[in-house]
Amino acid sequence: MTDFAAMKLYDGGRAPNPRRVQIFMAEKGIDIPRVQVDINKLEQRSPEFTRINPMQRLPVLVLEDGTVISETVAICRYIEEVQPEPPLMGRDARDRAIVEMWQRRMELQLLLPVGWAFRHLHPGGAHLESPQIAQLGTVSQQRAREFMEFLDTELADRPFVAGDAFTIADITGVITFQFLKPARIPFPEDLAHVSRWYREVAARPSVMQ
Amino acid sequence: MTDFAAMKLYDGGRAPNPRRVQIFMAEKGIDIPRVQVDINKLEQRSPEFTRINPMQRLPVLVLEDGTVISETVAICRYIEEVQPEPPLMGRDARDRAIVEMWQRRMELQLLLPVGWAFRHLHPGGAHLESPQIAQLGTVSQQRAREFMEFLDTELADRPFVAGDAFTIADITGVITFQFLKPARIPFPEDLAHVSRWYREVAARPSVMQ
Repeated sequence: MTDFAAMKLYDGGRAPNPRRVQIFMAEKGIDIPRVQVDINKLEQRSPEFTRINPMQRLPVLVLEDGTVISETVAICRYIEEVQPEPPLMGRDARDRAIVEMWQRRMELQLLLPVGWAFRHLHPGGAHLESPQIAQLGTVSQQRAREFMEFLDTELADRPFVAGDAFTIADITGVITFQFLKPARIPFPEDLAHVSRWYREVAARPSVMQ
Repeated sequence: MTDFAAMKLYDGGRAPNPRRVQIFMAEKGIDIPRVQVDINKLEQRSPEFTRINPMQRLPVLVLEDGTVISETVAICRYIEEVQPEPPLMGRDARDRAIVEMWQRRMELQLLLPVGWAFRHLHPGGAHLESPQIAQLGTVSQQRAREFMEFLDTELADRPFVAGDAFTIADITGVITFQFLKPARIPFPEDLAHVSRWYREVAARPSVMQ
């Protein structure tokens, strides 16, 4: 039995990556004691936190033996391995490869450009990204929209991003859609399948928390 | 027994991502029948290939049942699952999380900026990235250098990126270092630990092929 109470999660509140792990844990029905790090106050750049994660990024999971795991998807994978049910990263080798493909597409082709649009265009991104490059922000908005159009064709014939089951690819997707506003990208109301998918996943208790 | 001969790998020659899968297969001692797609001729944007991978990216693995797996790391994960020895993505849950953390750091903090430096500064990147944003290229060169300095402190006390064993994190690293030249980033001769690590991994038969 894994003792989640003996671990420690350095959390970052409502920012997209901390939320991915929060939703992942809620879907698994587990919780891990949390230490709040205030991103608005740039506490992730403090000397204390930098010793824990030199990348100065959140979230971070510290295991019972002191092992430090940073990177959202690495944290999720650890939880998936020690708490396999319900599976959020696939049920067998083929399925896990498909989930990973879609998780990466959602992250690299959607979350990343949406994040850049925020960081390079929003005044609130100025302390995260220096220099802000407005042209990159604008191009990223376009790339995000193009990917949403592609995703709409994919969601025409299946309920979730990676197939018939809710997975980490949906988690990456839903937190990204909820970050469109600060990135100044219109919600794609005109994309029927994406909109249906979004309404369904956004209504899950794990996402509404 | 997995029948690799019944699969098909759409390969992309010497480009960084196709090479990651080539090295991964060589370390596993396996091979998969390959179809060459010429990136220099933009064959990945042909209607035929776009039907296989709408993202127009290489490599792509097609399984015996026709399942299409794109995304380099998803392909590697599938191979890891059906051919576990030697492990290139960790031996147990804790180890796999550490490897994933480092694989992601190497990819997001090094391969990505090096790729952007090439795509946004080199004339050969013009057909891959439109518009080219020179400022992003320059900032990316700096970010890559900063990460290499961090990596140097990490490699001071262990042989490989993620610990005592050669893993996918080293593969992502070595192909990135071999892509510094077109990205116009000097090889960091002044970083002793990175240089030692690079010499060792670059001399592996899988990398020299």
